[in-house]
Amino acid sequence: MDRIPAALFGASGMVGQRFVASLQDHPQVDLVAVYSSERSKGKKLSEIWKLPDAVLNDDIASMKLEKLDIQDAVKQKAKIAFCALPADLAKKVEPDAASAGLAVFSNAAAYRMDDLTPILIPEINYDHIKIVELQRKKKGTRGFIVTNANCSVTGLSVALKPLVDKYEFPRVFVSTYQAISGAGYPGVPSLDINANCIPFIKNEEVKMNREAKKILGRFDGTSIRPIDIDIFANCVRIPSRDGHLEAVTIQFAGKAPNADEITETFARFEGKPQILKLPTAPKRPIIVRNEENRPQPILDALAGSSDRTKGMAVTVGRIRVDGDVLRFFCLVHNTIRGSAGGSVLNAECAIHEGMI
Amino acid sequence: MDRIPAALFGASGMVGQRFVASLQDHPQVDLVAVYSSERSKGKKLSEIWKLPDAVLNDDIASMKLEKLDIQDAVKQKAKIAFCALPADLAKKVEPDAASAGLAVFSNAAAYRMDDLTPILIPEINYDHIKIVELQRKKKGTRGFIVTNANCSVTGLSVALKPLVDKYEFPRVFVSTYQAISGAGYPGVPSLDINANCIPFIKNEEVKMNREAKKILGRFDGTSIRPIDIDIFANCVRIPSRDGHLEAVTIQFAGKAPNADEITETFARFEGKPQILKLPTAPKRPIIVRNEENRPQPILDALAGSSDRTKGMAVTVGRIRVDGDVLRFFCLVHNTIRGSAGGSVLNAECAIHEGMI
Amino acid sequence: MDRIPAALFGASGMVGQRFVASLQDHPQVDLVAVYSSERSKGKKLSEIWKLPDAVLNDDIASMKLEKLDIQDAVKQKAKIAFCALPADLAKKVEPDAASAGLAVFSNAAAYRMDDLTPILIPEINYDHIKIVELQRKKKGTRGFIVTNANCSVTGLSVALKPLVDKYEFPRVFVSTYQAISGAGYPGVPSLDINANCIPFIKNEEVKMNREAKKILGRFDGTSIRPIDIDIFANCVRIPSRDGHLEAVTIQFAGKAPNADEITETFARFEGKPQILKLPTAPKRPIIVRNEENRPQPILDALAGSSDRTKGMAVTVGRIRVDGDVLRFFCLVHNTIRGSAGGSVLNAECAIHEGMI
Amino acid sequence: MDRIPAALFGASGMVGQRFVASLQDHPQVDLVAVYSSERSKGKKLSEIWKLPDAVLNDDIASMKLEKLDIQDAVKQKAKIAFCALPADLAKKVEPDAASAGLAVFSNAAAYRMDDLTPILIPEINYDHIKIVELQRKKKGTRGFIVTNANCSVTGLSVALKPLVDKYEFPRVFVSTYQAISGAGYPGVPSLDINANCIPFIKNEEVKMNREAKKILGRFDGTSIRPIDIDIFANCVRIPSRDGHLEAVTIQFAGKAPNADEITETFARFEGKPQILKLPTAPKRPIIVRNEENRPQPILDALAGSSDRTKGMAVTVGRIRVDGDVLRFFCLVHNTIRGSAGGSVLNAECAIHEGMI
Repeated sequence: MDRIPAALFGASGMVGQRFVASLQDHPQVDLVAVYSSERSKGKKLSEIWKLPDAVLNDDIASMKLEKLDIQDAVKQKAKIAFCALPADLAKKVEPDAASAGLAVFSNAAAYRMDDLTPILIPEINYDHIKIVELQRKKKGTRGFIVTNANCSVTGLSVALKPLVDKYEFPRVFVSTYQAISGAGYPGVPSLDINANCIPFIKNEEVKMNREAKKILGRFDGTSIRPIDIDIFANCVRIPSRDGHLEAVTIQFAGKAPNADEITETFARFEGKPQILKLPTAPKRPIIVRNEENRPQPILDALAGSSDRTKGMAVTVGRIRVDGDVLRFFCLVHNTIRGSAGGSVLNAECAIHEGMI
Repeated sequence: MDRIPAALFGASGMVGQRFVASLQDHPQVDLVAVYSSERSKGKKLSEIWKLPDAVLNDDIASMKLEKLDIQDAVKQKAKIAFCALPADLAKKVEPDAASAGLAVFSNAAAYRMDDLTPILIPEINYDHIKIVELQRKKKGTRGFIVTNANCSVTGLSVALKPLVDKYEFPRVFVSTYQAISGAGYPGVPSLDINANCIPFIKNEEVKMNREAKKILGRFDGTSIRPIDIDIFANCVRIPSRDGHLEAVTIQFAGKAPNADEITETFARFEGKPQILKLPTAPKRPIIVRNEENRPQPILDALAGSSDRTKGMAVTVGRIRVDGDVLRFFCLVHNTIRGSAGGSVLNAECAIHEGMI
Repeated sequence: MDRIPAALFGASGMVGQRFVASLQDHPQVDLVAVYSSERSKGKKLSEIWKLPDAVLNDDIASMKLEKLDIQDAVKQKAKIAFCALPADLAKKVEPDAASAGLAVFSNAAAYRMDDLTPILIPEINYDHIKIVELQRKKKGTRGFIVTNANCSVTGLSVALKPLVDKYEFPRVFVSTYQAISGAGYPGVPSLDINANCIPFIKNEEVKMNREAKKILGRFDGTSIRPIDIDIFANCVRIPSRDGHLEAVTIQFAGKAPNADEITETFARFEGKPQILKLPTAPKRPIIVRNEENRPQPILDALAGSSDRTKGMAVTVGRIRVDGDVLRFFCLVHNTIRGSAGGSVLNAECAIHEGMI
Repeated sequence: MDRIPAALFGASGMVGQRFVASLQDHPQVDLVAVYSSERSKGKKLSEIWKLPDAVLNDDIASMKLEKLDIQDAVKQKAKIAFCALPADLAKKVEPDAASAGLAVFSNAAAYRMDDLTPILIPEINYDHIKIVELQRKKKGTRGFIVTNANCSVTGLSVALKPLVDKYEFPRVFVSTYQAISGAGYPGVPSLDINANCIPFIKNEEVKMNREAKKILGRFDGTSIRPIDIDIFANCVRIPSRDGHLEAVTIQFAGKAPNADEITETFARFEGKPQILKLPTAPKRPIIVRNEENRPQPILDALAGSSDRTKGMAVTVGRIRVDGDVLRFFCLVHNTIRGSAGGSVLNAECAIHEGMI
């Protein structure tokens, strides 16, 4: 199969760089153009590179950042546009890109809560991609927009999916331990976070509730019905670099299932990307650690089953059941599975569906 | 009033040093002897000092660490023994010290759950100190043991007290962000915690439940009846130095009181130490911060109303109410209010009661 | 003596806040007005406060930031203006303030290398303050400008002074370990410095050479003649919060004096501020630590002899002599002695001289 | 070619784990047995794994740690023993292993200064390996010992080699910024190093001088003559995880060569491993960065030319010449090039020489 040409909007930021890393050896997608703001225009990717754990190929390293231009992307024959723009800019650019015929896979929050746009995490809601047909019809465009979830929501939703499939519970309480890369660059000033933590991340707690409800919801052919579970979050920034840890507490109506059963439920979980063996799908979407002190960002954020899928699995641990209360921790790589890697996997789904 | 001579057991560790800092200018207590393990014997306090925010007086700085010896403490005319020993050692030493007639104020966990020993946080349960009379009677000693709470429990219990006095709720969910000083010295290896977090602190989650239940319980003249509220904790170490932050979620039976009412309930709270104006009692046991991103360890751990009381107040913030769910953050200085400072305040209560 | 009214220009930044902390209980100076940029206008000092180790008095805490206005300062009867503005702004404001009759004590680099402006570190070059008379005469103003040194230069120069007085050597090699507070706020992005170090601080290496040469130079009645020693610096930012550590290597022409002699030379050093017992002068400008692993920023940055003088002494340690080479470490609190505290001490000198 | 069976002594520590990572896909060496202390005996490598940037193969991950036993290694047909033991243990074990016929490649300091043992950095002193013949002869063993250098010395020596080949200078002044992984595990307590730095690393400054002199020395057929250059070091631990940065200052007898020439001298440097294309040899032993703020541990420690060689190149930057003084920074991955990776490359040399 010929690789499908793709453009990247917002290539210079933390998430943009993760997109580059995810795409550089991709078997189905060919990154042909990278766009950025005026400020970085003309720089090579190698000059702005800040990801210590990803080495650029020589040909990718020498790609030059251009000023964002949808028509230029079309001229470069891009069929896909990956989008790592800030929400306000994405709000304008993404519909234009869709109108221009591009399949937009976006990390921006701008259209996540739009009625006809899915927040796709294909292990959870692969069928939500079908709502794109309604989106295309309504907007009259060949192109379309698919979003990935907020980074914290991604980890939580993946961990909740096997539980909501099997059990009933009305509420989830979650406290987060979020890495500084989640705030982008320059992001958090070092004087604020060095040897400290900050119990506030703008809009994050609201997003965790409403995005998770939609992601775990049901597509009935015309709309996505949110799941009837409420998420109460406390979001905190801590001085780790990559990987959002989350302390999850679930109150069951009656006695909770025992810890062994929960463990097995997590460990056995797999979704459509695993069955389809999509290129960046981890062998298991959830990795269970049995050690008493895991998961940890440094040790587990890059968990996966191979070099291509590293950072794509969610790790859970410390599964504890006490009466009707289940507690566990989950960890997601915020800029891979929770951002760029999520959208790349979404593109693989659309390719599989013949939508591009 | 003449100052009461006091000894300090376990003076070289993190908590031991905080005891020294709390006691060095104390108007009622006179630190006459400092004891430590064999290893530090003969060293001056200035040689082992590791607290950047506390400057030693010259006379205190030159006090020499002696090998732990109860009889020597008695010989030095100590009436009080502050105890910052590890639990296993405290288990043996503290009853012997009480038998020798010393009033023991302990930071160790060894006797916290003992039926006749109070976990005293005098803003919450000043009257629990009365159980000491039963303790003395049963053991037939003039001396006695009073403990302070675990550091995380202290912050949580102080914050819960005005709420349990006014409202009813069966459960509290809490996730902690605990500083490295809480693990003592050498404590956590830097390779484990640098730019990382660790979702495990041995025994901490269990302690948070059972100690808080006892502290918030009622003394009926013969025993302390635990309060009927369950605490479900997730305890995590993060790379901050001092100050444990806690994300607290409370589910009410019906609609929760609104945020303004909760705020006022916190802000108005005061206890016996405030009324008695005890030397190290903060003007307010709870400080409410209205900023959207507080409390933070770096900025708020040392909160208090004066130099003597710094680190003795608990700070709360981000009070949010959503239907029947209340969420807020609280922060306690773990080695001051949550350890040494707590026991010094307890001693002041006993002095006020004429027990020493 | 009545306290002299003073204004503070640039009160909201890191150095500005240190000025407030240094001045709030000052026996000779009365802070009457605090100015800041448009952005912070109208905020109380308590609302912008970020210094964990300094507690504001209630009256100072409630002072409101006004938009920078020299005439307003004059109207408030200020005789002194402390300046913590960025260099480009200081370049314009400081001469205007001097023209308006204010005695300007500045932390800005703008006029440090001006021929008629001293870089005053009164333990080193108290007499350089006399050049102010020439400055006044030439500019025809009653007001004047006195600067403090760059933060790294301050530590190095204080440590070098007793050595240059006693020995001859042509060169000093120095490598720095500089704290993040030195870059101001927001300063260094956390993604750049978390668990990392950065071998570059703009202009710092050049400043270290030229400022030190001037500071250690001789005032001959008409001009300041730089000392004939060259400083070769390597400047590096590390993830500490406060306190610049410096590794100093000095090559002597012949055999170097032995370590004991050097130690004594450091320990005995005192300057005019010590003799005059100026309010913020530390008892000893240089504190020698004999431990094998000191000085350290966490343990020693706040070194001083009392609460008022904390952070005003320079700490040296690890004095090693090997043939003709002397090596040692020195540490300076960059925002106290190396910035705000330095200028406050300079003002005390001018007051002593009857210049205000 | 059949892969040569190798044992690893001291597999559980930081350097031990790096040996495992370097060897797991090695084309010439087959890791057949991993030994550790009694404490870790029986554990799988996956259970003790702490290296976030290295993913274990399944077969390697399930290897079990055995108690150190030379005869067992021989029984497993090992021809090579990689040694990551502490110096005191290595002192006893390594000669025994050599006597048992094993080719020992050691990271321990025990025999580095032994007259007949080379400190091999093959880009610098490939021919020093020949002294092993004298070692064998004298000790009457088939086996032998080859050591790699101390981690800080490695970075400095590689950077100095092209300079000493071309220029003459008597002295090198160096200050280090050393990562916490260099102290092993548990190593540095977090309370000591969090947001701090420590100007002391036991024996490091002495090692930097004497090891560099030997490494850069000349083997004349009977002995290694140290180079006549003195290294004056200041060694400091900082809170970075991996990668030792070093600020190097060199004083030339006359005018120093200009920065462009120095840059080219570094960039063109290559050694025998590059010519022989040994498996873990980086394409270039020295990578020059032209950016004003490089090298940095986070961004450059893993520099190399491919997955196998990552962490094997030394990065230099900020080359500045001022009269007769040259200053630059160099960075070495302390547990790869400066430890385990160094010894693996040494083994490749010995294999090439037919010594195993």
